[in-house]
Amino acid sequence: MSDTTEATEPARSPSRRALLGWGGAGLALGAAAAGGTVAVVKGGGSDAVPAAESGAAVPFHGAHQAGIATAVQDRLHFAAFDVTTKDRAALVQLLKDWTAAAAAMAEGKTVGEGAYGGLAEAPPDDTGEALGLKPSRLTLTFGVGPSLFAKDRFGLESKRPEALVDIEQFPGDNLDPARSGGDLCVQACADDPQVAVHAIRNLARIGMGKVAIRWSQLGFGKTSSTTPDAQTPRNMMGFKDGTRNVDGTDTKALDEHVWVGAKDGSDWMTGGSYLVARRIRMHIETWDRTSLQEQEDVFGRDKGEGAPVGKAKERDEPFLKAMKPTAHVRLAHPDSNDGARILRRGYSFTDGTDGLGRLDAGLFFLAYQRDVRKGFLPIQRALARQDALNEYIQHVGSAIFAVPPGVRDKGDWWGRGLFG
Amino acid sequence: MSDTTEATEPARSPSRRALLGWGGAGLALGAAAAGGTVAVVKGGGSDAVPAAESGAAVPFHGAHQAGIATAVQDRLHFAAFDVTTKDRAALVQLLKDWTAAAAAMAEGKTVGEGAYGGLAEAPPDDTGEALGLKPSRLTLTFGVGPSLFAKDRFGLESKRPEALVDIEQFPGDNLDPARSGGDLCVQACADDPQVAVHAIRNLARIGMGKVAIRWSQLGFGKTSSTTPDAQTPRNMMGFKDGTRNVDGTDTKALDEHVWVGAKDGSDWMTGGSYLVARRIRMHIETWDRTSLQEQEDVFGRDKGEGAPVGKAKERDEPFLKAMKPTAHVRLAHPDSNDGARILRRGYSFTDGTDGLGRLDAGLFFLAYQRDVRKGFLPIQRALARQDALNEYIQHVGSAIFAVPPGVRDKGDWWGRGLFG
Repeated sequence: MSDTTEATEPARSPSRRALLGWGGAGLALGAAAAGGTVAVVKGGGSDAVPAAESGAAVPFHGAHQAGIATAVQDRLHFAAFDVTTKDRAALVQLLKDWTAAAAAMAEGKTVGEGAYGGLAEAPPDDTGEALGLKPSRLTLTFGVGPSLFAKDRFGLESKRPEALVDIEQFPGDNLDPARSGGDLCVQACADDPQVAVHAIRNLARIGMGKVAIRWSQLGFGKTSSTTPDAQTPRNMMGFKDGTRNVDGTDTKALDEHVWVGAKDGSDWMTGGSYLVARRIRMHIETWDRTSLQEQEDVFGRDKGEGAPVGKAKERDEPFLKAMKPTAHVRLAHPDSNDGARILRRGYSFTDGTDGLGRLDAGLFFLAYQRDVRKGFLPIQRALARQDALNEYIQHVGSAIFAVPPGVRDKGDWWGRGLFG
Repeated sequence: MSDTTEATEPARSPSRRALLGWGGAGLALGAAAAGGTVAVVKGGGSDAVPAAESGAAVPFHGAHQAGIATAVQDRLHFAAFDVTTKDRAALVQLLKDWTAAAAAMAEGKTVGEGAYGGLAEAPPDDTGEALGLKPSRLTLTFGVGPSLFAKDRFGLESKRPEALVDIEQFPGDNLDPARSGGDLCVQACADDPQVAVHAIRNLARIGMGKVAIRWSQLGFGKTSSTTPDAQTPRNMMGFKDGTRNVDGTDTKALDEHVWVGAKDGSDWMTGGSYLVARRIRMHIETWDRTSLQEQEDVFGRDKGEGAPVGKAKERDEPFLKAMKPTAHVRLAHPDSNDGARILRRGYSFTDGTDGLGRLDAGLFFLAYQRDVRKGFLPIQRALARQDALNEYIQHVGSAIFAVPPGVRDKGDWWGRGLFG
């Protein structure tokens, strides 16, 4: 599964006429959004970064879904859905409709006939708030949760991958069921938040009567980078986050740690990945009263440069034994976890106040990996047991999703390998 | 009060040495954030728009507070505070400390010695998550709510402006006390949300033990523009919003409708303005099932272009009688309300899901005016009674604040006219 060429090919730029011909999935694709020429960037890689400002499009079709190795966009809207229909055919049709709409929106086009291209007597096909906005590197990444495979639902029990585990309760977890789980998920990332919000809202609308949003999360700022030469973003604790993240252009690392391989078990997941989402509340006010020395000890890096303890530069190789045994970086390091690595794409969130005058803020953690049992689970077990950071954070939401491989072409659709 | 020259002057660019000398308010101003040269833009006006991309600074000092006539930035973090101290001197010192911190942050500098410039044994002066980010046109706008003037608090009863009314309950209001009111407010607008969130969080931190956040609101996308030549943003209903808003460069309109005049009553408010904040939830799912014709009838404009009924172009003069009597644009128009005009600076919000699978999304409405009794109140009375839009929205939070004039220079501070 090292073939990432499809995902990094420039997308076709079909004319509107051609687009209207695509409507086999039940949704015609409408007028291109205003805003001039639509540039296209590579699906991943550091050279995609300057394109953030151009508002370019990321190709939707490819061997892998976009939004995983893709250079991390600035903003996030994430939604987990409950499937409310019991009709398998209706669900399959929805997934086809979603795929067509997602492909259109990724190109900066409207859903269907658009916000004002249809009949006046009918609701517009597209809700319209992204009209005039650029594609803004929108990616839509689709996943399937364990509950979809339950007995007596859609006959998928035998297709549940072993790697799609039920995540255990870790010490310190305080999970809210209303912010956890979900039959399906869609991760919308874009450099313009209105584009990401528009995408989730339109998918929810298309799914009306078949799915309902279980929970959703807005992320206002990225905290991880998959492009190691770009500036590393800081999390809400003021520390650089994701310095040693998996590089989205490192095919070898992706194949080893992120993409599901052909021999990994479930055929329909080959070329896909597993996503763990955790809502991590930060005790901002407590952290802000903590000394600089304690903050740096907790992470194992200095706050300004982001250098590991005893080193000068952010990207210097960490010397783990120089750090406290409870330092976050030490405990999460591959050398402490049998080489476990995960691709992080987390975002900071701020959702107002908690009723006690404290900011309801933190990190919406998103991590992709080839096998959760060799990625998130061992790392989180170590962190939950010992991490000095636990005094300042609490996990309040949790979900896991199997993220299928990419949609290969216009005849393909989200979940075809599972339902087809 | 037509003197806006101070607000549009380029800000001084003092050296770090000079900055450290400012610390009279109890807070030294720290190292400039990384990220290279800090450009400065005019405080308002259409020529400030391209600067959005440069990450430039908006001058903090001026005759009026920045963040009102200033070209609307992309993102918002708004906080309302309860004053928890009973000590007038402590509150005054806080307002001085806040002013110094706000002036520093508007220039892209850290609070105090910064995130790692102080003693290792002490908490850092700045929480650090905006290090390396540009000023991003950050403006911080300060206001005072009616409750601060209450008897037996700070001896301010006689200073309460008549225009700082208690807003009545309108038909259809469903106000949540936990999202309403507040003794103080700070509106943080910036093109980078991390910069806006950082600013509110650091002000809250400085205020620890004296104030507590009562409620706060993140706005992911602007819905109004104060620069009529820029593209008009769309709200979550997909319609262009703020087409005929007060132009932030139109000194005459600002003096007539936005800035408090010398003869308006309360001396300490001369050059200030009154802010009404309303959290307006949209019934997104209902709206999305409504026909295009109905949507356009409700607003009185077409969805695509934004032209008033019967007209071709967005900026064509509306012919009100061509619209339905319940059309939003008709009811809100100055001609329907004795010439009432308000300067809108609202933002779209999406705060997850409401527990019934519906997006908790809508408009965080912010409007500035010279006198609420001649601005928001008559307009909202008309809207609450008749507006066809009421079927699709609900006001769930409300607050009013007196926003004093600008901080003139480094010896001046937020609220000096009130407390001084």
